[in-house]
Amino acid sequence: MEQQTSASKEQIGSRFKRYNAATLGLRNYWYPAMFSTDLGRKPVSRTLLGETLMFVREQGKAYALHDRCPHRGIPLSVDPRREFAGTISCGYHGWTYDLESGRLVAAITDGPDSPICGKVTQRTYPVEERAGLVWVYIGEEPAPPVEEDIPEEFLREDAVIKGVIQHRPGNWRYAVENGYDEGHAKYLHRTTPWMFFRELPSWTRIHIEADGKWLIRVADEVGWETDYPGLGRWPQNRVAGIRTFWKARGRNATEIGIRLPGQLRVRNHGWTDYEIYVPVDEDTHLAVLMAVRFTKGIDAWLWRLRYWAYIRWIFYGLLNGGQDSLMIKHTQIPPERLYRPDISITTWRRLCEEHARGVTPAPATNGASHGDEVEEGTPAPAIAVRR
Amino acid sequence: MEQQTSASKEQIGSRFKRYNAATLGLRNYWYPAMFSTDLGRKPVSRTLLGETLMFVREQGKAYALHDRCPHRGIPLSVDPRREFAGTISCGYHGWTYDLESGRLVAAITDGPDSPICGKVTQRTYPVEERAGLVWVYIGEEPAPPVEEDIPEEFLREDAVIKGVIQHRPGNWRYAVENGYDEGHAKYLHRTTPWMFFRELPSWTRIHIEADGKWLIRVADEVGWETDYPGLGRWPQNRVAGIRTFWKARGRNATEIGIRLPGQLRVRNHGWTDYEIYVPVDEDTHLAVLMAVRFTKGIDAWLWRLRYWAYIRWIFYGLLNGGQDSLMIKHTQIPPERLYRPDISITTWRRLCEEHARGVTPAPATNGASHGDEVEEGTPAPAIAVRR
Amino acid sequence: MEQQTSASKEQIGSRFKRYNAATLGLRNYWYPAMFSTDLGRKPVSRTLLGETLMFVREQGKAYALHDRCPHRGIPLSVDPRREFAGTISCGYHGWTYDLESGRLVAAITDGPDSPICGKVTQRTYPVEERAGLVWVYIGEEPAPPVEEDIPEEFLREDAVIKGVIQHRPGNWRYAVENGYDEGHAKYLHRTTPWMFFRELPSWTRIHIEADGKWLIRVADEVGWETDYPGLGRWPQNRVAGIRTFWKARGRNATEIGIRLPGQLRVRNHGWTDYEIYVPVDEDTHLAVLMAVRFTKGIDAWLWRLRYWAYIRWIFYGLLNGGQDSLMIKHTQIPPERLYRPDISITTWRRLCEEHARGVTPAPATNGASHGDEVEEGTPAPAIAVRR
Repeated sequence: MEQQTSASKEQIGSRFKRYNAATLGLRNYWYPAMFSTDLGRKPVSRTLLGETLMFVREQGKAYALHDRCPHRGIPLSVDPRREFAGTISCGYHGWTYDLESGRLVAAITDGPDSPICGKVTQRTYPVEERAGLVWVYIGEEPAPPVEEDIPEEFLREDAVIKGVIQHRPGNWRYAVENGYDEGHAKYLHRTTPWMFFRELPSWTRIHIEADGKWLIRVADEVGWETDYPGLGRWPQNRVAGIRTFWKARGRNATEIGIRLPGQLRVRNHGWTDYEIYVPVDEDTHLAVLMAVRFTKGIDAWLWRLRYWAYIRWIFYGLLNGGQDSLMIKHTQIPPERLYRPDISITTWRRLCEEHARGVTPAPATNGASHGDEVEEGTPAPAIAVRR
Repeated sequence: MEQQTSASKEQIGSRFKRYNAATLGLRNYWYPAMFSTDLGRKPVSRTLLGETLMFVREQGKAYALHDRCPHRGIPLSVDPRREFAGTISCGYHGWTYDLESGRLVAAITDGPDSPICGKVTQRTYPVEERAGLVWVYIGEEPAPPVEEDIPEEFLREDAVIKGVIQHRPGNWRYAVENGYDEGHAKYLHRTTPWMFFRELPSWTRIHIEADGKWLIRVADEVGWETDYPGLGRWPQNRVAGIRTFWKARGRNATEIGIRLPGQLRVRNHGWTDYEIYVPVDEDTHLAVLMAVRFTKGIDAWLWRLRYWAYIRWIFYGLLNGGQDSLMIKHTQIPPERLYRPDISITTWRRLCEEHARGVTPAPATNGASHGDEVEEGTPAPAIAVRR
Repeated sequence: MEQQTSASKEQIGSRFKRYNAATLGLRNYWYPAMFSTDLGRKPVSRTLLGETLMFVREQGKAYALHDRCPHRGIPLSVDPRREFAGTISCGYHGWTYDLESGRLVAAITDGPDSPICGKVTQRTYPVEERAGLVWVYIGEEPAPPVEEDIPEEFLREDAVIKGVIQHRPGNWRYAVENGYDEGHAKYLHRTTPWMFFRELPSWTRIHIEADGKWLIRVADEVGWETDYPGLGRWPQNRVAGIRTFWKARGRNATEIGIRLPGQLRVRNHGWTDYEIYVPVDEDTHLAVLMAVRFTKGIDAWLWRLRYWAYIRWIFYGLLNGGQDSLMIKHTQIPPERLYRPDISITTWRRLCEEHARGVTPAPATNGASHGDEVEEGTPAPAIAVRR
């Protein structure tokens, strides 16, 4: 009940002006909005990056229009009607829009000669479907090919993709930063069943490397059971016996990468986890969580079985949907006080600041600033990535 | 989840300054507050035009006082007591007000010589009962006779009135404008069972005429099944056979009128629908919906039966309470973009601007303005009505 | 639905500047936060005076820290962990704080040499336990001994204390003023079963006297059944026969006192009621209600029985929790209009103004002010109390 300002409205760090301003997300990117199987002839409303869109499918093709009839401000998705092929009609007065161009082609209740026709055009959004998802482009600049903004592996012939989309509390930046955050997994997630079969270090020292569009966290030093001065040893693995039995060091070596406009890639043993965090409004986001394995035939079915057997409910449920989501919901910055492992967060922020599409990137100032600098750590390195 | 400003707080059109300012309603009118049968000795609180009133009945007569004890701000309707005839006492400390004058006649807990008596007067409101409704006058000017603000037919000896009062979302102006809106009925309501027995045109060309205090929509041209260029024919009456069977052109010719301060009259075959939209606060209104037939004896009972058999649930339920209320709730202006049939709306706005009681009517400017002008249509005509 | 400003944010009376400003309470006092029996090893979050604290017990001793990890703003009470003796760890990244000093003694996931250790200190709050309650000191000045802020009788060897703590709507000042208010009890509470066994006057004339730290209401004149001019006799005791039977004038003579920072003492026949109203946020407070009898042995058990038999549910339930709490919730000032018995309220306000700890007391101006002066009554007297 403490009086709280909505942190997402305020500055995260004075150095990262573009990132701070991106409360509603980075524009001029393609974002996944829903599963293709969830879109049919019945219009579906979705808010993305603070804009409300109406999605609809016509003759197999997906379309998106701004979800507000300019006449009286009614959402087109409220009691919508489909009167003529290739159009959508507002349920209130029958204003009818061409799905492709957004042009008002009839105001039914004003007759065939209605003078308003051709004078009103509803905003449309580029839509594509790839990898079982509906992707929409939100921005002012011309849209690049959708493949530019899709992790390349999603497009492979042999990618078998399973996943889940959830609407969750918390600004999208808290979700992305949580996903790339070096420190939390080995502490927060230690208590999930997922980790019973893994050996988790107590601490890591890392640096960040660019790999194409991705920034990869690379470990320089790893600590396992550790003596903390004046406190004692941690962790004290009470279940060490079980863990030793399951221990397969190879499984622990996950590689974690991040890319614009907020996509995470976690390479696990035999499969890859993709997490795309899509801004909805200031205080909520979509978590698009995809588990991918490159396979076919019998093994594809075994993979699907494995997904449903435990990945879905332990990894995307208890771990990501339970623990991560709880922390994202409670994150309340600024102010913040970063520590050494947060070089992962500040490097991601610098990536947005210097490489996000849209406006000419402003050079980051080198002046002192409070709150966005990693405590005693290496400053966020300049990163060369493909835009 | 799009960030929205409360449209009711903003301008609807720059030409109509008084109307724009009337977010909480037009003052200096009588409004229906509840059914007479709902008011007894137990105080009832109602908010109207942004003011909270306490209604109470004493010896058959209805009274209304401002519902806030000036001592500590407690509503008089919270745990109220009736200690002495013709008074109401605040339940907290026993401050006792005369129902007729509002004067503080006793502060019980300060004894019979309490020096505050006679120094505090609670605001009272003129109250009358007509046609089974409790009417209250809210304004600063002297109240005219209540009959001035009641549709004259309500007062006829042979009026048999049935109806319903509902508290609904949406600013009162959206409800009134929806009621008088030329365009929506023939599109929005086409899907209700009410219309199975009627033939609805696809479009109409109208003008507005004054008739006493009423503004009447008059059709100049009516289109039935119509070819829309490049799109096709509409409507394609799949149930035309049934409709032809029921078709009785006389039943379609409803006459629709409006008057200040927001009363609709819809003349149907054999009965009249009155809809009075009463402002509550910025975002909600009361819908007072009355079905009237002039009759007596057996036919009066048949009329009551007919009301309960289908008017109540199809017309006031599915059509008005379902479809209209949904659109009123979702109306979100400004901005707005009017079209030719909306001359009905702009003429109503001009009526408020030029003829509403209260202040000297300001001459409407002729300067250009965005958003309040009917697209390509005749400008709202000057209307001569009886005030 | 009347548009209301949050009264607690505005001025109550222009004379009492410090009191007006104390929307979140008077700082530099000890406050009861919970029962000792409700605090164990599991952290408990409580908001008091607008600050959110995390309480936890370690080796029998109670501690309180500010409930927000400065790293990413997560409350320490969300998924907290106890890794090392005498510490609490944030569940997100394992930042570990010493309970006594608040110092960050480990950032587990950054290893034993984490450079941030020793550079971050979490705010701690003095905590003591007395009379079965956890008391916490909130303020900037050095804390006095907790006994300074506890009613001395609570600390007696033979005090048998029963009670209840409830989180209730309404600013804390409304609750305290209701408790000390001279006028309301004899009107509002007349209808509770509690009063069936008492004879209540219709009015009283009082003055206020200081008694150590307490201000005591002293009756100068008492009116029983009274004739109110032009209205009639009140009360008309229909159950006078029953009341006469139970009448024991000694039982009516309750003595009511108040002291800083908002503690009430009501001396009843054979037991004392203490009511401590603790600010939570602007719009809610904790009601800490304690019934005390000085006794031991068999009589102590009879007292406990009596508490559960009727004090708990009639006095703290129906009367205080039902009627008082309803009025406190609906109190909506300013503006207010005080009357003669409210000298109790203005004297309490003057006590806060002139004697509350913290800043140098400002001399009350003698200029005219609206709303804080008792109508026609004696002005609030200067009070000499021990601070």
